[in-house]
Amino acid sequence: MYKEKHIRSIAKTISWRVTATVTTFTLVWIFTGQITTAIAIGGIEVILKMLFYYLHERGWEKTKFGRTEIAPFLIWFTGLPDSGKTTLADLLYERLNKEDRKLERLDGANIRKLFTKTGFSREERNKHIERVGHLSSLLINNNITVVASFISPYKESRNFVRNICQNFIEIYINTPLDVCEKRDSKGLYEKARKGELKMLTGVNDPYEEPKNPDLTFSTADQQNSAIIDCIFEYLKKKKFI
Amino acid sequence: MYKEKHIRSIAKTISWRVTATVTTFTLVWIFTGQITTAIAIGGIEVILKMLFYYLHERGWEKTKFGRTEIAPFLIWFTGLPDSGKTTLADLLYERLNKEDRKLERLDGANIRKLFTKTGFSREERNKHIERVGHLSSLLINNNITVVASFISPYKESRNFVRNICQNFIEIYINTPLDVCEKRDSKGLYEKARKGELKMLTGVNDPYEEPKNPDLTFSTADQQNSAIIDCIFEYLKKKKFI
Repeated sequence: MYKEKHIRSIAKTISWRVTATVTTFTLVWIFTGQITTAIAIGGIEVILKMLFYYLHERGWEKTKFGRTEIAPFLIWFTGLPDSGKTTLADLLYERLNKEDRKLERLDGANIRKLFTKTGFSREERNKHIERVGHLSSLLINNNITVVASFISPYKESRNFVRNICQNFIEIYINTPLDVCEKRDSKGLYEKARKGELKMLTGVNDPYEEPKNPDLTFSTADQQNSAIIDCIFEYLKKKKFI
Repeated sequence: MYKEKHIRSIAKTISWRVTATVTTFTLVWIFTGQITTAIAIGGIEVILKMLFYYLHERGWEKTKFGRTEIAPFLIWFTGLPDSGKTTLADLLYERLNKEDRKLERLDGANIRKLFTKTGFSREERNKHIERVGHLSSLLINNNITVVASFISPYKESRNFVRNICQNFIEIYINTPLDVCEKRDSKGLYEKARKGELKMLTGVNDPYEEPKNPDLTFSTADQQNSAIIDCIFEYLKKKKFI
């Protein structure tokens, strides 16, 4: 919630007075041809109207008419491990942060403080994503834009989030499995191939592709900066920014 | 985040023009003694300055100078089961909701969607309260005021919340145990006395009284409405509302 301080109203009063008194002075001079009358009227006007203008500003500060909140949205990156979701979400967050809006970033790492670690069964994974959905919905209902990146492999939990969050934008990072596996930043793919890790999405647990994502990209053949530009274009087209 | 719509600037332009042109017209009339000159100057001024005023408003809309956010705070009700925390927190929430601010209510019931049920050991209870603290801090950092009610029996987790949340206001509902036990809205005290329920705060698990709560009340000898009034007085004194 915002309010306007008195100092703002005072500064506006002064900047307006300069604009307005120059106009009045010029008009009176042109019409009467008398510079002294123009100065006299201009002089009294300066004092009187500054007072009126200030009171006018304070009066308007009391009403919400014509004031509107910037619409929040939820950007949801989904895709295989190492598909590039987190990197893209971080870049997008950074760029959105330059805009004048409330913004939160949610991913596996920073929600650990909120949610206890859960298991990897379908049910447990779905529950986890549903909790993230509830949190996102709480934030969005308070006009906070959310950038989330989660593997979120199952369609039912993604749909759950879509249903409870307004302005849900699903971005599918469709980087091919072999490219993700080559990156293997945490060595998870290697462990899964050796059988040391069970239930790794893409290897021994399914990733259910989104049927109608709002946007789809692959970091195998697109530059990150180009993808971010595309997302910005989309948000502009949809009037979110 | 707020922005001002064009319609607001237009309405302000008109309301100001009425005030200002009447002033100019009167001044010119008094100084020149000529009503025709006053009308002519007033007439041109109306058109010209409406345009200038509108542009002036739009220019100011681009700057944040003198615009400030309403400070958020966290009201934390702590006390025995059936001490009256939830009722008071609900009443306070309702009344704060009439003010022009972002507000969330957190209690055991409505955070169940976010946090899985945990056990009743000291460690588990502390973890639970810490999670609520992290959530509150997330909300407060986004300028959302939070009204929370939790038994929160142990001092270390209450201190944890105090340390991570700005503007933490601890309200201790110090209703005597025998009064709480008489109420026994969920039959928990009875179960605990029979030994069917272990770890009920106040019966077979300690409640550690806050050492320096910001406010203390007892619903045994104070009316709810009087307590809410006191809290409002406190918030006003601290310049939160």
